[in-house]
Parts: sequence; structure tokens; C-alpha cells
Amino acid sequence: MYPFLKGHGTENDFVLLPDHDGTVHGELAAERVRALCDRRAGIGGDGVLRVIRTAAAGDAGRGQTVLDGGAEWFMDYRNSDGSVSEMCGNGVRVFGRHLAEQGLVDPAQPVPVATRAGLKVLTFAGGTTDGEITVDMGIPKVLGETEVAVGDRSWTALHVDMGNPHAVAFVDDLGDAGPLLEAPTHDPAAYPAGVNVEFVVRRGPQHVAMRVHERGSGETRSCGTGACAVMVTTALADGAARGTEYRIDLPGGTLRISWTADDRVLMTGPAVVVAEGTTDL
Amino acid sequence: MYPFLKGHGTENDFVLLPDHDGTVHGELAAERVRALCDRRAGIGGDGVLRVIRTAAAGDAGRGQTVLDGGAEWFMDYRNSDGSVSEMCGNGVRVFGRHLAEQGLVDPAQPVPVATRAGLKVLTFAGGTTDGEITVDMGIPKVLGETEVAVGDRSWTALHVDMGNPHAVAFVDDLGDAGPLLEAPTHDPAAYPAGVNVEFVVRRGPQHVAMRVHERGSGETRSCGTGACAVMVTTALADGAARGTEYRIDLPGGTLRISWTADDRVLMTGPAVVVAEGTTDL
Repeated sequence: MYPFLKGHGTENDFVLLPDHDGTVHGELAAERVRALCDRRAGIGGDGVLRVIRTAAAGDAGRGQTVLDGGAEWFMDYRNSDGSVSEMCGNGVRVFGRHLAEQGLVDPAQPVPVATRAGLKVLTFAGGTTDGEITVDMGIPKVLGETEVAVGDRSWTALHVDMGNPHAVAFVDDLGDAGPLLEAPTHDPAAYPAGVNVEFVVRRGPQHVAMRVHERGSGETRSCGTGACAVMVTTALADGAARGTEYRIDLPGGTLRISWTADDRVLMTGPAVVVAEGTTDL
Repeated sequence: MYPFLKGHGTENDFVLLPDHDGTVHGELAAERVRALCDRRAGIGGDGVLRVIRTAAAGDAGRGQTVLDGGAEWFMDYRNSDGSVSEMCGNGVRVFGRHLAEQGLVDPAQPVPVATRAGLKVLTFAGGTTDGEITVDMGIPKVLGETEVAVGDRSWTALHVDMGNPHAVAFVDDLGDAGPLLEAPTHDPAAYPAGVNVEFVVRRGPQHVAMRVHERGSGETRSCGTGACAVMVTTALADGAARGTEYRIDLPGGTLRISWTADDRVLMTGPAVVVAEGTTDL
């Protein structure tokens, strides 16, 4: 038996595994991750967030960025299939919420978190444990126009890379893409490893709503990097001043995103831990 | 904060809510059930099993059958949409497993459980806490031949009522019905309230495998009454002697089912509790 928690950010959900000194799970087997994330036979989640001190995390926690930042905590993120992953914008907020709720970090200060994609710094709105959390999602790369299609409908899309590839298409109605049972057709030359496709409609000034089809996962309730790609695409279309904040509505909740003068994308959103307990999965 | 457990029987999964005296949840709001069963924002499950003493369960626990049987425990079953439900063959095994693991019943003896469908008696294989659990699923009604179709393929099926309606069709290959994204077409005169459709292939003597499309839920990993309807259909096709045990493979696991000389269907299968903890959902 070992401890777990379950939480989500805009309905992107995770099993958290407290393992501060790495003595509970050791190498953390892929099989255990799959068992935990199984939505019928296990607890269920889009991934696992192991909560481990950077000093205990072995090679995974000893990147140069981590040493420079001096982050006490390492987010050991695993996909639901058991594979290792670098970063997750919704996951890192849930990770930060847990640290703050447990008194392991001070939400009144910026909280550095080590990840396989380098150091991420979280800020808590109002400096409070339960405030919305902002995370720096890095520098977007805007790579030109492309095309996506579903069935016999096609749309011009913008190719935006947020560390992972996106195609962002404005549509007249979010229902236009249909039930999205399969991946939208895309240009394999532009996206040799597949693409996350976002469909966007305007809701008002600096306010859009989106659906997302994630490669490998199908349509999901939320995708943090996808919301960032949508914000960048919309800001470019609007000729918006840097620093303008956009509201992005996803099926699983709302994110607020801005693109700073120094070319960083800052994503702010909710995170909640809904249950805690023990398991022997 | 209140306690919960999560468990499953052949991957039909449930959130259990210990509430022995009814003082934790009172009326148990449909909204709370939906929040608990939400697979992203909650814990996730096909339903909720409240564990409550019959004496504390109010009108729901005071049926004639319950009084006659003198069952100490009432399975207060709710569907994931918050509605009240009568019985669930996979759920009642998980319910029994929990009672035995907590020392609330003696697995060496038959364990009566009160449900809205009357008294169900569980028996534990070997009289042990972790043995497979058998439950009496009642008397089947065989109502004649009907037809089901998926796309341009159709099959003759047997109409079997196990308290809920089923159409059981033998197919050449379990893939024949395709991805089963929508309900198979059926005869609305035979099934005015919809139907659960089972597709079956033979695997060997007294051994079949099945897929099931449940009305309102889509294709699922397991359906206890569906497996019973499949067993009855196969036994009739085989001219099997009463009491012959069949092995039924479902996507989520294996059930063993027999049809007794006194016309009862007995279903035996696994049940496991995988996690426990607290939540404030």
C-alpha cells in the first residue's frame, strides 16, 4: 500500500504519487503507471505526477537547468501508457497546488519546479494556496500556414510549435469538425510526427473557445499547449499588443493566456486535488 | 471530507461510499454521485455503491423482500448520471468483497444483501474473503427470435429478459460488428425502451466470448446481465443440461455462469477493491 492523490486542471487529470525521497517507488515501473491510469481497473488519469525531491530524482532530476534553478521539487511526469514525458502545463499546476496544500512550498513566493523540459516557475494568484496558478510555457515558434481536414471539409490553419506541434484553425462553429472520432487529416511534410489540431471560434474581444484533437489521445477536455497555440494564433490575427490577456474556453474549463514582450507565453488556470488515499495497484 | 473506496468487477467499476448509519450522506444528492463518477473532474466510475445498513436506508431499504431476508446491509446503487438503480451483478460482488474485507460479514456463510430488486445472496468461493463471488441473478425470460443490425450487416438474435432486455446474436468474428460507435438497430416493437445487444463467438465447449453494447452507455468492458443472457442463449443452442457451467469471456474479464434446475441463473466472478481514501467532492 502506498499513498496517492487525484487532481485535475481544466479536466486534464492526474494521479499524484508522493515519493519525496524516491524510496516508495524506486524506478517507478511503467506497468504500475498504466495500472494507476486505467480508468476501469485502476484509479484513472491522463498521467502520473510523481512528487519527488530533485536531489532524490537521479539522472532525470539532474539536468543543468535544474541545478541552476535550485528547485527543491521535481515533477516526474509519466503518460498514461507508462512512457516518460517532459512537461504538462495542466499537470504542473496540479503539482504546484499539491505542494502548496501540503505546506511544502510557500505560495506567496514564485515556486520553481524542475521538469524534464527544464525549470518552470509557478506563481499563485494572490500568493494564496488556493489561487489560480500561472506557469511560463516558453517561447512559441510560428511556422506558417498549413491545412487540416475532417471528412470533406478543410480549413486553413496556422502551424505553431509550443515544444510540440499544433495546427490552429478558425471555424464558423465548434460543431463543424463533427464528432472528431479520428485524427484530422494534415500535411505529413509539415508534421512528420503527427500534430495536435485545435478548432477555434471567437466569443468576444480577447475571448475564444476551442476544441482539440491530441495526437495519440483523440479529442480531450483540455490541452495546455494547444490553448497557448490558439492564443498566439488569435493574437497574431488581431494584431494584439504583447501582454494582452486572452480568455480561452476549453470543454474542461477556462485558461487565461498572455504573450509577453520578451516572447514568453504565460498560462493561468485552475488546479484542484479532489481525493487522496492509499492503493496497492 | 468523507471516505470512499474504488473497485471493479470485470472492469465494471464503482465508487463505494461507506455510510453505515446514513449520517454521512443523508439523501445522497444526484449531483454528488455525478461528481464522484466524473472520470476527469472526479474519481470516476460506472456507478456509486453506498454501503448502508438496511435499518438506516429508509424507504429504499424497507421492501418486503428485505424484511423477510433480514439482510443487515443494503446496496444503495446509483448510476453515474445520479439516477437510482435497482441492481448490478458486477456491483454486488464488489459490494460483497468490501463487506468481507472490512470484517462486516462472514464469507464462510452465505451473505444476504438487500437491493432495490430484492434480496441477493452472495457466496464466497472457499468461504474466504478473497474468493470469487457467486450471485443469483434470477429467472431468465426467453422471448423468441428478433433481429439486430449494424450498418448493412444484420443477425438473428434471441430476445432474453434478465430484468432488463437483451438481444443475443452469434457472429462469425467479434470484429464483425465493427467499432460499435452507435447502438445496433433493433426492433422497436420488441424493445420499446431500447435493448442491450450482445455479440457472441464460440471459443470451445461451454466457452464463449462476447462484446456488449449497453443502451445509454455504449460499448462497455462488461455487463453482468448481458453475460447471463449470453449463457442462456448458448445453453439453449447447445441443448445443455441444467447446471452446466459456461465460461463467458468479456473484454474486462471472465465470468462463469450456470442455469440451475430450478430456473435460476448463477453468476460467479472476480471483484477487487483497488483504492481507498477521502474526498470532498
